[in-house]
Parts: sequence; C-alpha cells; structure tokens
Amino acid sequence: MGAHEGFLDSVRVAHELARRQKEISVAEFFERNKHILGFGNPTRALVTAVKEAVDNSLDACEDANLLPDIVVEIRKGENERECKVIVEDNGPGILNDQIPLVFGKLLYGSRFHTIKQSRGQQGIGISAVVLYAQLSTGKFTKVLSRIGENEPAHYYEIGIDVNRNEPEIARSEIVYWNKEHGTRIEVDIVGDYRRGRKFVYEYLQGTSIVNPHARITFIEPNGEKHIFDRVSNTMPKSTLEIRKPHPHGIELGTLIKMARQTKAKKLSTFLKTEFTSMGERTSRAVCEIANLDENINPKELKREDFIRILDAFKKTKIMAPPTNCLSPIGETLIKRSLKHETKEISPEFIVATTGPPSVYSGHPFQVEVGIVYGGNLDKDSPAKILRFANKVPLLYQQGDCVSTIAISSIDWRRYGLEQKGGRGIPVGPAIFFIHVASTNVPFTSESKEAIADIPEIKHEIELALKECARKMQRHLTKKERKKKTREKFILITKILPEIARKAASMLNKPVPPLDEVITKIMDVVWIEDSIEYEKIEGDKERYITKSRILVANYRQKPQRFNLYAVIPEDAIIGFVEPKPEKITDRYIKWNLPTIEPISKLELNFELAGLNKGDFENDLYVEGINPDHVIGADKWEGGD
Amino acid sequence: MGAHEGFLDSVRVAHELARRQKEISVAEFFERNKHILGFGNPTRALVTAVKEAVDNSLDACEDANLLPDIVVEIRKGENERECKVIVEDNGPGILNDQIPLVFGKLLYGSRFHTIKQSRGQQGIGISAVVLYAQLSTGKFTKVLSRIGENEPAHYYEIGIDVNRNEPEIARSEIVYWNKEHGTRIEVDIVGDYRRGRKFVYEYLQGTSIVNPHARITFIEPNGEKHIFDRVSNTMPKSTLEIRKPHPHGIELGTLIKMARQTKAKKLSTFLKTEFTSMGERTSRAVCEIANLDENINPKELKREDFIRILDAFKKTKIMAPPTNCLSPIGETLIKRSLKHETKEISPEFIVATTGPPSVYSGHPFQVEVGIVYGGNLDKDSPAKILRFANKVPLLYQQGDCVSTIAISSIDWRRYGLEQKGGRGIPVGPAIFFIHVASTNVPFTSESKEAIADIPEIKHEIELALKECARKMQRHLTKKERKKKTREKFILITKILPEIARKAASMLNKPVPPLDEVITKIMDVVWIEDSIEYEKIEGDKERYITKSRILVANYRQKPQRFNLYAVIPEDAIIGFVEPKPEKITDRYIKWNLPTIEPISKLELNFELAGLNKGDFENDLYVEGINPDHVIGADKWEGGD
Repeated sequence: MGAHEGFLDSVRVAHELARRQKEISVAEFFERNKHILGFGNPTRALVTAVKEAVDNSLDACEDANLLPDIVVEIRKGENERECKVIVEDNGPGILNDQIPLVFGKLLYGSRFHTIKQSRGQQGIGISAVVLYAQLSTGKFTKVLSRIGENEPAHYYEIGIDVNRNEPEIARSEIVYWNKEHGTRIEVDIVGDYRRGRKFVYEYLQGTSIVNPHARITFIEPNGEKHIFDRVSNTMPKSTLEIRKPHPHGIELGTLIKMARQTKAKKLSTFLKTEFTSMGERTSRAVCEIANLDENINPKELKREDFIRILDAFKKTKIMAPPTNCLSPIGETLIKRSLKHETKEISPEFIVATTGPPSVYSGHPFQVEVGIVYGGNLDKDSPAKILRFANKVPLLYQQGDCVSTIAISSIDWRRYGLEQKGGRGIPVGPAIFFIHVASTNVPFTSESKEAIADIPEIKHEIELALKECARKMQRHLTKKERKKKTREKFILITKILPEIARKAASMLNKPVPPLDEVITKIMDVVWIEDSIEYEKIEGDKERYITKSRILVANYRQKPQRFNLYAVIPEDAIIGFVEPKPEKITDRYIKWNLPTIEPISKLELNFELAGLNKGDFENDLYVEGINPDHVIGADKWEGGD
Repeated sequence: MGAHEGFLDSVRVAHELARRQKEISVAEFFERNKHILGFGNPTRALVTAVKEAVDNSLDACEDANLLPDIVVEIRKGENERECKVIVEDNGPGILNDQIPLVFGKLLYGSRFHTIKQSRGQQGIGISAVVLYAQLSTGKFTKVLSRIGENEPAHYYEIGIDVNRNEPEIARSEIVYWNKEHGTRIEVDIVGDYRRGRKFVYEYLQGTSIVNPHARITFIEPNGEKHIFDRVSNTMPKSTLEIRKPHPHGIELGTLIKMARQTKAKKLSTFLKTEFTSMGERTSRAVCEIANLDENINPKELKREDFIRILDAFKKTKIMAPPTNCLSPIGETLIKRSLKHETKEISPEFIVATTGPPSVYSGHPFQVEVGIVYGGNLDKDSPAKILRFANKVPLLYQQGDCVSTIAISSIDWRRYGLEQKGGRGIPVGPAIFFIHVASTNVPFTSESKEAIADIPEIKHEIELALKECARKMQRHLTKKERKKKTREKFILITKILPEIARKAASMLNKPVPPLDEVITKIMDVVWIEDSIEYEKIEGDKERYITKSRILVANYRQKPQRFNLYAVIPEDAIIGFVEPKPEKITDRYIKWNLPTIEPISKLELNFELAGLNKGDFENDLYVEGINPDHVIGADKWEGGD
C-alpha cells in the first residue's frame, strides 16, 4: 500500500485504531514492564526482592519504635533458576484483613498522604515482589504475621489478579507462631544467587551502616551466617508526620487543587492552615505581596491570583520546614561508619557534613555528604560513590543519580583530584558518601535506584560537597605545612642545642642561650594535640574522649590570642581546663593568657557521648596572624 | 518513648498503620512522582512534552501509512515560567469518543495486546503531558482532531481527574479545521526554553535522522523556523502486528496464565496456536523433549510440567521470530545518516551493522550498531554515544542504558581506543550509534530514556559492536599497510625508472628493463578502486554508483585468483564486467584470468538504489596468499 492510498484511508485507520484502544490495570502494566520495578534480570531481581522486604521491615519497626531484628535467608529453589527468599522481622505485624491488600495490590500503602521520611513511599515495592514471584515461578507468596501476644498469627498464600489489581488468596489460616509480633515473608523467584550474592551482601552491609540500631542476620543457601550487629541501642530520633506541604516550590496545579478542597473561608486562613511553616504574619505578608485581600474566599481566586501567590511565596521570607519530619544520620555517625567501613585502607582523612533542611516542590529534604581521602585508596581509579536515600543504600543506576550529577559538575582539580576538563567523576584516592533524606525522595523510577536531577537537591549536594572539599583541602594543606615545619622544628630544638652543648663542652665554655636563635628561626606558635579514649567503668560500650592541647610560643615576642576547639554536634562537653571564656554546643573558646617566648601552655577537655575513634581536634585561633600558627586555622565562625 | 515501651505497643501500632492504609489511582501516583515520567525539572519537562507528542504523531502516521508532516511550535507562555507547546500532524486523526480517553486517562492505549514495533507502548506518554500541564500551570490541554474530509473536526479542552484516573472535559465542540485529517495538541507547561532548546533541537534532529521519511518543522518562540526535511519518500517497511509471544525467554507465570486461558484442548495445539514460530513439528518436538503427552489438556498441566516445557523450549531448535514485526533502519541508511551528521568532522571511517532478530522474555528485538571513527573527532574525550529505541532518540540517562553498559564491557584497547583498565566508555575519536528495535522495548522507567540491562539485548549489542570494531580495525590496518606500500610503490614505479632513464641517457645506453627489479622489490598484487556517482536523468534524487577496480600484478610470477566485491543489502547490481563467476544479493565473485607480471586488469560494476556517497568498495581475494595482496582481504565468506 503506497503513501497516497493510505491518505484516502484515514477514516478507516482512525476506526481501526479506536477499536484497539483499551485500558489495562496498573498490575498488568508492571507485569509487562517488570524491569521498571527492578526485576529486569535474575541478578537484580534477587537484590530487589531482598531490598523491598527489608525496607518494609525497617519502616515497620521504626513506626513501632522497636529495635529491628531482621533475618534474611536465601535458600536454593526447586530448580537451578529459582531462589527462595525469606525475610522475617520483629515489627508490629499487620492486621489480618490488611495482609492481602498490603502484599497483593499495587498502589496500596500507608504513606501516601502523610509527609514523613520513610523508606517505602510508593505503595509498590512489596506487592511488586509478589507480582514478580507469580510471574517468574508461578508461585504465590507466603506471609505470616502476628500483631501481639494475645493475638493469633495469620498465614496467607497471596498472589495478584493482574487484570483487576486485586489480591488473590490461595490459602488463609490461623497458625501457631512462636513469636509475639512480627512479619515473615517467603517468596520464590527466578533469581541468580551466584551473581547476586555480592549485591545482596553490599545492600545489607550498606543498610547496617546507616541503620546502626538494626541487627540484620543474613543466612546463605549453604547455611553460612553473617550477622550485621547493631552498634547502637538507641532508636533514631523518631520522625514526626506532617500532613501539609511547605509553600516553597509547590506546583500551581497543586495549589489550585488545595484551594478548591480547603475548608478555610479566607485566603489568609487557607495559607496558615494548609501549609507548614506559615504563621499568621507570614500568611498576611504573602497576601500583601500578592496584592490580594486576605479575606477573599480561596475558592474565588483566579488562575492569575494563584500565580501571584506562588510568586509571593518566593519573595516572602518563610521558615525552613520543620526538621522533625526528617531523620538525617548525623556527622558523627557518618564519620564513624565510614571509618569502620574503610579501616582496611586506613584513610588519611574523613570529613562529613549535614546540610540545612530545604524544600523542593513543597517536600522537605536534607542532604548529608562525606568524603574519605587517601590511605591505600587507588590513586588511578575514579572516586567511589556511596549513595543512600532515606537510609537505604542505592546500588544501581549510579550514572543518572543527582548525587553523581552533582559530583560531576564540581571542578575537583582545585581540590587536588584529577578530572578531565574539570567535569565528570574525578580520579583519585577518594570515596564520596551522599545521603538524601526526604519526606518524598524523587526517585527516577519505581525501582528506586537513582534520585532525579531536581535543581534544589543538586544545589544542596553541591554546597555540602564543596564544604567537605574545603575542609579536606585545609586539612591537607595544614598537614603539609606542619610536616615541613616539623623538620625545621626538630633541627632547631633538638640538633641545634646538641651542637651548642658539644661545642661548649669542647671549648670548655658555658652553653650559650639559644632561645633567641630558636624563636628567630622558627617564628611560629606551635600547637600540638593528642586524644585518648577512656572506658567508662562498668560500661563496655561507652568512652570518655580526652583531648590534650599543647601551645608552644616559638616567636620572639610574648603572644596572646583566643583559641577555639570545635566540638561535634552529638558530644557532651565535660571537664575543661584552663577555664574557658565561653562554651556553646559547637565549640569551646579560650581567652589564653600571655605566653612568653619558648614557654608552653597545656589545655585539656573531656567529651562524653562519642565512641572510640570518633573525635579529631579541630582548632582555630583569633587575635593572631594565622600565618604564624602551626596546627590551627583562622577562626571565621563569629562569636 | 523507649524501645521497650514500644515493644508492648505493637497491637496499637498495627492498628494505627492499618488505619492509614489506602489506595491511590495511577494518576495520583504519577502526579506525586512526575520526575518518573520525565518531568523532574523544567528543562526536561519541555523536552518530554515535545517528545511524547511527536512520537505519537509518528506512530499514527505510520499506522495509516502516511508520510508524516509534523509541525512543532514552541511559544512563550503567559509568564516567564511557562511555555506553550503545539504539535500538529497529518495523521489519521482520533475518533471523537476516543479523544478524551487517549489524552485524559493513564494506562489507556492501543498497543498493549499487540506485538508490533512502535514508539509508544505504555499508554502513559501523552496523558502524562496533559497531567503535567494541569499540575504545573493549572491549564487544560487543547486537542483538535479530524479523521477525514467528510467528517467534522472535534475540539476538546481536557484534564485528568487524578482521584479516579478519568478524563475531565472542560469544553468540547465541533469546529472548522482547514485540514483533511490530523491531530493538533496545544499544551501549557512550566518549562525552561532557554536551557531546553538545545535538547528539543537535538531530539528533533535525531528523530529526523532515523525517520528519513518524516518532515518535521520546528518553530521557535522568536518565529525562527527550522525544517528537517524528509530525505526519502518511501514509507518504512510496514511492520506486521503479531499477537503471540515467541517461546524463548517466556516467563513461567506467563506460560501458566496462557495455558489457563487457551481454548486449545491439546498441549501440541496450545503450543502451535498460542506462540509464534511454532509449527506442527516443533510443537511435537517440545512435547517429546518435555516428556509430556501431546494430547494432554493444557489446563491439566502442573507447575512441574510447565517448567519442563520451558526447558524444552530452550533445548528445541525454534525459528527466530518473524522479522516483519520489526522495522530496523538498515546499514545503508545508518551509514548515510551518520555520514550526513558528521560531515563537518570528515571522519575517516563509518561502519554499521544490523544484527539478527532475537528474543527476550518472548519479545522479538533487533539491534543495530554503527561506529564513526577519526577525522576531526576529539582524541582526548570519551567516545560519544548516540542511542535510539524504536527510532526515537534517547537523550537522558545514558549511564544506565544497556547500550552504555555493553560498550563499557568491551575491551576497546585491542581496537585502538584508550580505556582505563579495559572497562568503561573508551576515550578516542569515535562515535557509537546504537538502535534497539523491539515489539516491547524494556525501558528502565516510564520516561523512556534508558533501556534496561537485559542479558539477551546486551549480548546482541556486544556482538554487533565487536563486528563493527573488527571491520574498523581491518580498515585501519589495511589503510596503514596500503599507505606504507604506496611509498615504496611510488619510489619503485616512478623514481626508479626515472633514474634508469637519466643514467641511460648520460651513459648513452638503452634504458635497462626494470620489470624484474620492480616485481622483485614490490612482490605484491596491487588493487586500487574508485567510485563515481552518475545522476539518473530526470530524477534529481537517484544515482547510479559506478565502481572501477584495477588489479596490477607486481609479483614475479603470473597470478590467478578469485576476487569478491561485497554489495550493500539494499543495492541492486546492474552492469558488471568482465563476466563474473557468480552474483548473489550480497556479493559479486570473479574468477580472474591469469595476470602476467607488470600487467593490469580492469573490472567495472554498477549499482542502483544507493544515494551519492553511500558506497565504499569492500574487496576480498581467494586462491592467493593475502599477504601478497594490497587493497583486499582474505575471503572467509564461503561460497
């Protein structure tokens, strides 16, 4: 059929196309596109199945404020293509009538209309595993759950009716379970354990790094058992649920929809009640900047008015979103985990930072960044990237993750790493750690492996990376300078006096005074520090961190200046001597007494709340030219 | 609340969690996760909107066998954040009652239950644009469509009721439209034209490369017009729809479902009628290998039986799927497009190959690969990758695409490119072209930007890449050898006789015979070729390709051997002299007469069906040691 004949035929074709139009259920869509859910090949399928189940368990335990105790077991399947994955938790369990829906229906979940940081947010994960099991092995998923001591345990065999996206129950009964509460899922899938093992292990290890309160037991098909034990008995700060979006970045369509559905009769009330971070005053300010009557009924607003409100949101100073809906990991814990994970390569420097809370499209988020540098890390390979979203490690799709995009957009050459053309992943002995916490992590797909390139998130990651990079660079420069000066220092303070002594003894003369010579050549204030950890008696896990600082004046004149010691967020300051001028939760400030040439001054302080190895002195000076100080930087923190 | 208190509380928490469980519609899911659909930021949103509309237009035209004439216009929006995107086609149009569903309902489409290569396969694309417009600007989408001369044009303003995933119609009327048939969509979105322009242009240009039959007009906000004109008036080979899957890689769950739903009463009939590529004999062979009675009712089969059938599918020789459901671009067209697109960098070599059809999870697919090498391409940058899926350019998420993964897994150092550790994207003056055509392209997400890492697809891409790489390497070696020999050749055939002549004239002696000296030093058969294109009279687009081959014997003995000239698939062989021994659709074979030392032989042939610049001689020899031949390789193609 030529193009011209076709031309006459458009009516017939239009009818033919119309005849073929039909609707499919979301379950059928995903059955046909299982790769979108992370089941594209048997290796990834195995990792995804473990991941979805474990994420659910961690969320459930967190909701119930229970220290998670999760057992992941992988067994050989009925034939060589299949694996059996079993995940059992000590969570709160699931109500009997909810079990089929939670496991057998897509887009069914508890986290859609709440704004809270959690691992699962889509209502797809675990039912996708059930769907994949059914598709790949034809088997239903076995679920066992119990909500408490006085309640029965319920056992189900669940599948999904893909045409209707409804659960299909093959079996349901009350059984005995020797566990007070918890959920156990057993799923048979086509999975490649041989290739997938490495990733499952990596995922569980990564999960344990950022969930120090969880105990995860991993049992391999050969019976080998790995325990990723908890390193903390404290539950993470429990996150509060907020039900309202933040005004920043909210979509016009969402704003219009909210105004249509609100019960508020006045614009100012609408703004105050339907958004977070909006008080009386801010709401009024928004109305004023938008040039709208604060008493107007929101339902009467026109599209143009909404656009003006959006602009006013941008121009008004609005508080950051409440951070209690977010649960970042924290600098100390990140550094501790990174130190623990990299101990074999004994890195030279580890730095981490938690950024300020921010907002994209009305969703609060916070980024955390860490850099590990030096040691036995390969100097000729691209830097390694460890990515996490809401405390879940991301293993795949690194290339398209906003983390990678942010790293690639920074010119790392100025921070001492190799990078072709100042773009792309730098080459050098470095590991990047990036964690994005949000009430709604914008994943690029349902398989939740990469975070979308959202400008606000990219910006915050870049800022945090640059902060870490600056610290890293300062550290390296300081170290280099100290090393060079130390050589001079040893020459002058050890060898010169020795020569003087020998010469004097040979000439039978008194040893000449060298102080002036030493101070003339050195011309620096030398600051040394050392750290000791002392076990708290009767408590095998807790330590007192003891920091000792020695300030020696190797200049020709007496010196007087202020010294600051920066303290990690989660440390508690105990004993301090000499008496400081000021203590805040972030630093100790000493107004040092005058130090005469060749004299020394010792300072000591103790910290509680840190683990062994957590601390590193971070010292700053004020009121002295920092070029003449070795071992501390210029204080720029204000007072 | 401590962990222990929580422990007592699991019943309360389980109830609290249950209370929060709810279902959301697929529209609401995507409204909350617009980044999954490719609307994560205003730049990408603009590109995605254009892409979804144009892909739909191309599909519709192809269905109706119409040469596409598509106008894409971008206008300034009502305010600086907004853009208006208008896409108008000359396709078959959409039936009146279908318009709201096609544009206002997700997971509604015409391509779910057919197996055919098309751009849209998910039933999400265009309704996602409508959803995003509504979300970002609060505006409904305007659609105008007409199916033929004697039919009215229908105008709609359409939105989506996200709670129900149903179309919302703000306006609907019959209007006058000065166009016989076609569809026009006008959508207002938040989009960044300044940054997005480059990508829109790239997408339209890429689309035009692989759809040479389409005319695309692009009108910018300032009125500037770009026409990507069609370079071919022939519709692509129309693809046949098949409604049955191929047995290879079919999922067990799918097989069980099919057996449950079949009308066939016998296993062998089931296999023969519900699958493609299964004849009487193959079906029986499968039953035999699976050790199952061919007369058994498929509904009586057990899970174990189905597993045996799957294994038997693997062990039985089953025909490849019919290729008429696939529409590859073809070697010549790829080479022509690549040549056209890279003319400014005058590359040294372009090679392309179309792989054999293959199957993953029952879906037929085919890969095509091309490599552009040398010229002014940057030697120090990573090779550029051009990716296409079902003739749609892929612009984002390169890192996670199976194309990139396949390229990165090959050791390119052995083909002369730089590559750290023999993995990753190689560095060097090369462009890779990769096209995956399939009845169901496994995209990693609904935004259709990357193809999932499916083992079967990766394997085929690797094979095709290696084939191209080998050709490239052979070409480069041949060229290098020819260059070296040419220097010797010039020395011997030009300078030596000149010296002999001068010396003879000075000594007043006759010029000595040099033939023996020349053949002794050269010791090769020298093959030169040249190509000319001659316009066909009265036809400004068509050419006759004229190839002339000169074979010169610079060896000391007479030579006799066979010469093969390989012909591109779509060329038609015309005049050939001398009379060849054999002509197939892939090559011409000459049984050359004996060529005496210092003698030459000329061969000529003509080809029709190629454009100017399409052809390059590809010559092979047989019956002679190829080490003594310059300008042709050893024939390994068989007879």
